[in-house]
Parts: sequence; structure tokens; C-alpha cells
Amino acid sequence: MLMSTPKLPILTNRADTLKYEEGIVRVLDRRKLPETVTFVDCYTYEDVARAIIDMVIQGAPPLAYAAGYGLALAARQFSHLPAKVFKERLAQAHGRLRSTRPTGADIFPLMDQALELAYEAIDAGENAESVLVGFVNGQIKAGDRAARLSGLHAASLLSSGDRILTHCFAGAALNYMLYDAVLSGKEIELFCTETRPYLQGARLTAAQAREIGVPVTLITDNMPGYLFYRGMITKYVTAADSISLDGHVSNKIGTFQYAVLAHQFGVPFIVLGYDGPDRDRPNAASIPIEERDPEEVFYCRGVRTAAEGIKGYYPAFDITPPQFVSVIATERGLFSPWHIKDYFQAPEPQE
Amino acid sequence: MLMSTPKLPILTNRADTLKYEEGIVRVLDRRKLPETVTFVDCYTYEDVARAIIDMVIQGAPPLAYAAGYGLALAARQFSHLPAKVFKERLAQAHGRLRSTRPTGADIFPLMDQALELAYEAIDAGENAESVLVGFVNGQIKAGDRAARLSGLHAASLLSSGDRILTHCFAGAALNYMLYDAVLSGKEIELFCTETRPYLQGARLTAAQAREIGVPVTLITDNMPGYLFYRGMITKYVTAADSISLDGHVSNKIGTFQYAVLAHQFGVPFIVLGYDGPDRDRPNAASIPIEERDPEEVFYCRGVRTAAEGIKGYYPAFDITPPQFVSVIATERGLFSPWHIKDYFQAPEPQE
Repeated sequence: MLMSTPKLPILTNRADTLKYEEGIVRVLDRRKLPETVTFVDCYTYEDVARAIIDMVIQGAPPLAYAAGYGLALAARQFSHLPAKVFKERLAQAHGRLRSTRPTGADIFPLMDQALELAYEAIDAGENAESVLVGFVNGQIKAGDRAARLSGLHAASLLSSGDRILTHCFAGAALNYMLYDAVLSGKEIELFCTETRPYLQGARLTAAQAREIGVPVTLITDNMPGYLFYRGMITKYVTAADSISLDGHVSNKIGTFQYAVLAHQFGVPFIVLGYDGPDRDRPNAASIPIEERDPEEVFYCRGVRTAAEGIKGYYPAFDITPPQFVSVIATERGLFSPWHIKDYFQAPEPQE
Repeated sequence: MLMSTPKLPILTNRADTLKYEEGIVRVLDRRKLPETVTFVDCYTYEDVARAIIDMVIQGAPPLAYAAGYGLALAARQFSHLPAKVFKERLAQAHGRLRSTRPTGADIFPLMDQALELAYEAIDAGENAESVLVGFVNGQIKAGDRAARLSGLHAASLLSSGDRILTHCFAGAALNYMLYDAVLSGKEIELFCTETRPYLQGARLTAAQAREIGVPVTLITDNMPGYLFYRGMITKYVTAADSISLDGHVSNKIGTFQYAVLAHQFGVPFIVLGYDGPDRDRPNAASIPIEERDPEEVFYCRGVRTAAEGIKGYYPAFDITPPQFVSVIATERGLFSPWHIKDYFQAPEPQE
């Protein structure tokens, strides 16, 4: 009798969550998951910029792809203009889309390369929109491969009996890691923090893990320390929005404090590093930490949770220094944070 | 010109939040603060037990006082019965009220002493209800003194410029600490975690601090690590639901993880220790950690926040070992956790 193959859930293949359809960028609204699967339709690059800022789409690679499609929309919007004006408008769109969210690093090289390709297309009399859509499609395909291989390399570190803590939603690589562990017959369990204020853990991670078939237990963001203290956690796994060349890992706010606890209790911290560190970020100081509207910490799913008349503070990411990171699992294999720069010398995966 | 004296807010004097009125125990509903100041009226000891379990009243000393009044209600309910049966019913009520919440230690000696006094009153032909109400009133008065002096001793450790992290609501002693700092002209600032799932930080601490006149900034429970990392915190202050004789501090879940971070960054952790350690708890193993209904982590103020089909885990308290505690501020002065046992030899405050 054949076992039924576990299915990979919706946030695995980026093409299922982000589409370019004849002048519309359709973005899966992650804020409404898991109750509702609904898409926000963007008709202009400004719509795309707003969708990124408002967290319709989240995660450093996915939002970079959305921004790329946004530039394709701009190319469609302005293609009737003289080349010089067309380029100026594209540069404006590029600037707007590029400055939506500062911490995740994928958006910057992707957008810069996209603009260059668009200029070349205009100069060559080609259809810039098509060139951009093709470019972003290729980036998504490459990103999917990075997610899959990064997840599989991380899975190689898991054993039956592992009780894994994760924070926020670590994206497609997490899904692949869990999926591979289940396929390999490893008995693992996941503990996920709810991840205030947007609850990505409670909503996205919990639902994805359940669909993959991994037993998942939700805890609030103040509980990981106690689970470490009780010896309930054997691995700690998150994604990274940015990795500097000297091994600092920036990820959703909270990642750092759980890394300190994991270190204190001798639990390895595995970072899903996707396509490696960020060439333009030599160190922690080169990673800008986004601070979002403090109002967002006063509400939970639209309900007021805080007293009136107080201040709020909402840094959306933090930075974990390399001494608290055990290993970075990338598409090119496993690296210590101390020599993550070697990623660029490692052979590209052949398949 | 006289400065207007800052006012102490509602959760300072316990008699403002818990009243015994002719066979009714009136309990301020902390779950509805700060929006609504409303009392839950308890007509039987079982009503009081439910109010404690359902967190209408919270905090180790306040809920102990409520339980004591609950026994007074039982004395009223059963006073018409023959002495032997009356005592049996009181013992039942005592058992029920005593087993409502296991971690906070105040309830146990208070209830045991209350039952003994009630028996003596019955034997002496006295009104047991009156004896119990008088006893609990005295306990509240003593508790208020402990809170005030504990807060003042903690305040002696604060300086202008301190940026204090606190977790959950540390009760009347916190109010006195902040109040004293303000009166002394110390410029301090408070950062409070929201404290999921019940949001005592966002609702109670934030509102109390604002009323006292201390600038207060709300953060989510995953943010303290980043604030320590950035050097934004100079003191960490919480209450304790239980302190063992060897210096382990049990308090609201999350207290431990922030204590580890404070230690990592050289920030002192000041515990508001009220009336000292618990005589019957020699060590960490003797502090039972309450695990509440996991359903409670799936909701925030009544709104579903989690995916369906998953498990939840809700330990309501954690334990901080003495190596992460800098000082315990009690009614009898400041103690290192390593010699908190000396509390019992220290002179009682005279005033």
C-alpha cells in the first residue's frame, strides 16, 4: 500500500501567492490567512507599494518579487511615453518600490537589476514590461529553488524526537524542511510563537505545519524561555530577512531574544538562509531596522488591546550576532555564521 | 507654589478593589480594566472560587484575600448548621478556595490560618463570619504595608535617567515604587510588555503608570531582547508570585526569559518581594507551575487569533533561578536572592 504523499501548503510555491496577469499584480493577502484565501489586485505600482507597506505580502524574498512585478506594472503604465520620460518614470517607480521596507535585503539588488534591464529593453526597442515579468519569473523560480534546498539542508540536521521552536513564519524553506522530515519518517514536533503584533506564527506557521502533518503547539511570545528551561526544545529554527557578511542575522523582532535563550541552554539555532548573505551588507551596522507605526502594538486583529494615552514602540526586526547563531542553512549547504562569506565561493547547486 | 501631589491609581489599595459587604464579596473585574471599572458580586464561596479561577482578580496577595473573604461567605452560608457539620462545610469551602490557583503562595497560609480561626470561633460560640472578615481585613492592611514598603525599598535603587522594563502587572508595590520616584523628582521611564494572553501589561501596568505620571511605552512580548541589545533598558522590575527559601522567583510567564536577557546585558533585575519568601517552599521543585486551558492562547480579548486544528500550551508562570535575580525588595529591606532566608530574621518594620 502506498502512503499518500503529504501536500506542500499554499505558502510554499511563490507563484501560488503572487501573479502577474495582464497588467494586474495579484497578491495573496497574508493578513487574512488562514481563515480566508483572498488576493489583493494591484493596478498600479503605487498599489503594489502600498500592499508591501501594509504587509499584504511579507517575507524578504516574496515582497522583493512583488516589487519587481510592480516595476513591470510601471513599465506598462508608462510605455507610451518618450524613452527619456519613460525612463524617468521607471526610476521614480523604482525608488518608490525600493523604499517600501528597509530591512529585508532581497528587494535592493532585485530592483536595481530590474531597472537596468528595463533601460536596456527601452534602448533596444523591446517591450520593457515583458522583459521585467520574465526577469521576475526567473527570480521567483531561483528563489523557490533556494527555499527548497535551504530547507532540505536544514532538514539534514533534524532527528526523530526533535522538538523545534520557531518564530514568525520562516517561509517556504520551513515548509520544505518540515515536509522533508515527515517524508523521511522523522518524528518531529513544532512549537511556534504567536508573533505579535501580526501573529504570523499563530496564523501562518501553525496552519502550514498542520497541513504538512507536523504536530504543532502554539505558545505566546513570552513562553519560549520556560520551554528551554524545562528542556522541551531541542532545536531553534527561523528565517533571516538579512544576513551580513560577518554573520549577523536580522529577522522578525523576537528572533534575537530566543537565540540568546537557545544559546544559554545549549540548543542549536539553525537559520534558514535561503540564497545566502547580502553582498552589500558587511556588518550589523549596515542592516537598517524598520520601525513601524507604534499604533500597531495597540491592537490585535483590529481589537484595541492597550490602555489609552501611552506610547508604543514597534521595531519590526532585530539582529542576532554570530555568537548566538549555530548554523546557516543555505541553498549551497551549511555554513557557520563566522564564515558565511564563503557562500559566494561555494559551488552553485546543479540540478 | 505647591506641586499637585500625584494620585495613586485604583490598583494600589486593595480595599478599593475587593470588598466584603454583608454577605457579598465584591471583586473589581481586572479583565475589563482599563476601559471599565466594574465589580463582580459573589454571593457564595463557589462564586469567589470561580472569580479567582477566571482571573476576575489576579496577583498572589489579592486573590488570597478574595479566598479569605470567600471563607467568610461560607461561614455565613453554613452558620445555621450544627457545629460539626458547620466545620465540615467550612473545611470543604477551604479546600475548594485553596485549590483555585496553585502557584501564588499567599493563599495557602492565609486560608489555613483562616480555617483555624473559624474553628476556634465556632468552639467559642463566636460569629465565625465576623472573625474571618476581621482577619482578612487585617491581612489586607498588612499586605498594603508590605506593598508600600517593598515599593519604597525598590525605589531607593532607582536613579534619574532609569529606563525600566517591567512585565505583567507587578501590583501595588510597583505603583508605590513609581509614585515614590516621581515624588522624589527622579526622571524615569517605563517600558511594559503587553503580557499575552491576558494583556496585564498593556491594560493594567500601562494605565497605572500613566496615572502616576510616569512616561510609559508599550512593547510586545517579543521585543525586550532588542531593547536590551540597543542599551535602552537600565533596570528590570517585576513582582513575584512565589519566592522559595533558596531564592528562586516564580512570576508571570515570561519573567524568566527577560531575566536571562537582563543578566546577559548587565542590567539589574529587581524583584518586588512584598512580604518575603514562602516558608513552605524550600526550592524551585516546591513551586507548582499552573498550566491553564490552552484555549486561552488561541484568543485575544475574545477574538480568535490562531489557526484551527493545532495544540496550545499555557504555563501561566515560570521560575527564575537566583543567579538571574539581582535583588529582592521586601517590606523588611533589600536582600540578595542567595540569602533571602534572612528575611525571617530581619526586624519587622516599625511605624
